[in-house]
Amino acid sequence: MSKLDTEHATGSARPSAVVPGLDPAWLRDNCQCADCRDPVSGQRLISITNQAREVTLTDVLEASDGLHVTFGPDGHRAVFTRSWLAGQQTAVVDERSEDAKRLWSAADFRAGPVTAWQAYQSDHEARLGCLRELLSSGFMLLRGVPPQPGAVLDVVSSLGYVRETNYGRLFDVRVEATPANLAFTGLPIGPHTDNPYRDPVPTLQLLHCLANAADGGESGLLDGFRAAGLLRAEDPAAFSCLTHTPVTFCYADATTELRATWPMIGLNSRGRIREIRYNSRSMQPVRPSYGTPAEQAAAEMHEFYRAYRAFAAILLRPELTLRFNLAPGDCVVFDNTRILHSRTGFAATGHRRLQGCYADIDGAESTVAVLSRARQRGPGQG
Amino acid sequence: MSKLDTEHATGSARPSAVVPGLDPAWLRDNCQCADCRDPVSGQRLISITNQAREVTLTDVLEASDGLHVTFGPDGHRAVFTRSWLAGQQTAVVDERSEDAKRLWSAADFRAGPVTAWQAYQSDHEARLGCLRELLSSGFMLLRGVPPQPGAVLDVVSSLGYVRETNYGRLFDVRVEATPANLAFTGLPIGPHTDNPYRDPVPTLQLLHCLANAADGGESGLLDGFRAAGLLRAEDPAAFSCLTHTPVTFCYADATTELRATWPMIGLNSRGRIREIRYNSRSMQPVRPSYGTPAEQAAAEMHEFYRAYRAFAAILLRPELTLRFNLAPGDCVVFDNTRILHSRTGFAATGHRRLQGCYADIDGAESTVAVLSRARQRGPGQG
Repeated sequence: MSKLDTEHATGSARPSAVVPGLDPAWLRDNCQCADCRDPVSGQRLISITNQAREVTLTDVLEASDGLHVTFGPDGHRAVFTRSWLAGQQTAVVDERSEDAKRLWSAADFRAGPVTAWQAYQSDHEARLGCLRELLSSGFMLLRGVPPQPGAVLDVVSSLGYVRETNYGRLFDVRVEATPANLAFTGLPIGPHTDNPYRDPVPTLQLLHCLANAADGGESGLLDGFRAAGLLRAEDPAAFSCLTHTPVTFCYADATTELRATWPMIGLNSRGRIREIRYNSRSMQPVRPSYGTPAEQAAAEMHEFYRAYRAFAAILLRPELTLRFNLAPGDCVVFDNTRILHSRTGFAATGHRRLQGCYADIDGAESTVAVLSRARQRGPGQG
Repeated sequence: MSKLDTEHATGSARPSAVVPGLDPAWLRDNCQCADCRDPVSGQRLISITNQAREVTLTDVLEASDGLHVTFGPDGHRAVFTRSWLAGQQTAVVDERSEDAKRLWSAADFRAGPVTAWQAYQSDHEARLGCLRELLSSGFMLLRGVPPQPGAVLDVVSSLGYVRETNYGRLFDVRVEATPANLAFTGLPIGPHTDNPYRDPVPTLQLLHCLANAADGGESGLLDGFRAAGLLRAEDPAAFSCLTHTPVTFCYADATTELRATWPMIGLNSRGRIREIRYNSRSMQPVRPSYGTPAEQAAAEMHEFYRAYRAFAAILLRPELTLRFNLAPGDCVVFDNTRILHSRTGFAATGHRRLQGCYADIDGAESTVAVLSRARQRGPGQG
């Protein structure tokens, strides 16, 4: 009963074949009319359970304003514009996965993606460019943030919301007498992600330098997605092992006891790299999988350690780590699900003080999306 | 060169066969001595990359205090107690997955797991029992929380930290004139999880009733892990489809634009149910997977809609939903990665006001772990 091809079919940019490519139930559930979607919120008003088990198309008419459809058995009528339909034909890119990122090595950042705090605050384009860098490269570096306690909270409120934890809304990174965490010593700390013992893990970390008169304490960042991709290319069995083996990370002190279990390399449902959890300090002994006989457990552990060592060796390749010294007023912001950070050792007597803060990257994504809208509307309308 | 079996091997509770079941690299990395683990923080001081590629055991001696090991090639010596070794033989249970939960239907809660706010505040055991209920059943219900604005923040600070979002540290759920979200109307709302467009999703939700004079507006909770398990048992193909198909959820208003992509049923790396994201209001049109030819896309969507409908039908089974009316002073706290909540419609003119707040379940897990320590030490030492 389709009237397709009777009108406007010739010469249209989208051939009529687009209709055979659509499932009626999908089309019905995605009706954009005011009865099916709330005009203010854009939220769906209908439920799949209110629709017939077998939705059909009883009439289809291709007109200049789009596809006019009548559904069976409910008789509902809908119009789908060509541009809307065209937008549904491509696969969704998982914006958090390797597929949506600019993967990098240290040499890609000769100049360094540095933005002045003043420009970031006053210039819409500067802020948008800087935040886009955070999403695509996984980090951004602000310079000139007043080196005063608490200023890191001004940075976080420019891009999202603080993730408060047992460490507080913000925390000091400086040498302590009896540190509950090795971060609060002068020891070198190899590449790691923060708080893998937390679930959900904080997806953004901010580190703001208030003072740095210590020798050493050089900071390093590396792209964990790039490193995991290298492991996949060079040693697929090791990559597979690290994406499947659950690892428990733990942190405990007098008032807190956190524990989370995930593979070191997390994939999305399409098998693409999406999250790195890597921290030798808080990693607990890996256990055999369910029902493994004791005699196989050692072989399983041997394979895990081979894979872990292969990944660890990649993470130490000098060409992967971007090295820099944080100067007072510098604030680095990075994606804690992707970027591993490290620091070289420093003399515990030298004055080095950072303030850190956790936040979430969905807030930064929202900020970028809203700033991008303002740009689409043009200057003066932002 | 093993001295194993030469001492204490006969008659010991753990036979010496436990040693052949251990991988040397695993054992070396998990050395518990003060050179390898920081005695204060318990954090690992050694790195896998500082160890030899092939770790060996050059000497093993089973003594009364445990296993004495000498490693090659570094010559490091370690002692592993029997109890520590025994604790490493069992598989880790993923505490967030179905494997660690008490799955339920409505009939399992005749009496209702209700705790008085006063008892929760003053009685260590009452608080611990209530919070354990939250972890095992996915929700807890407090009664007698003062029905005053902001009191929900007292509840959240008893168990963790607020997850601040674009909705604020807390938010009101009441009827609005031009609602940006259907929650702020009198419409019925089917079972759903909150904020699937956020990533990380808030893992806990609190809803505190300040006033409820409206007809209707009955609340419902259901165990999404139980429901997903039923789908797996009844229709494995549908279950598989919903664990693999990425679905994008979106929320947008004047100042916010959030978008996240995940399957409706999330599994851990061992294939066990771990997270439900389900919200017909904010679900975007499902797109074909990468590289699907147009002619296959419709079939893929048809299969998805068949699976989605099967799951939706299970979610509407009356026996799964626990129904109750929130009275002023009631505060329900639930795991937003597992429990779907719903409400029946109510007259928009009736006075119904809730305050809600998001938080994270890792904070509640930590609180339970620390409260449990106090109990282990016995009364008076907590």
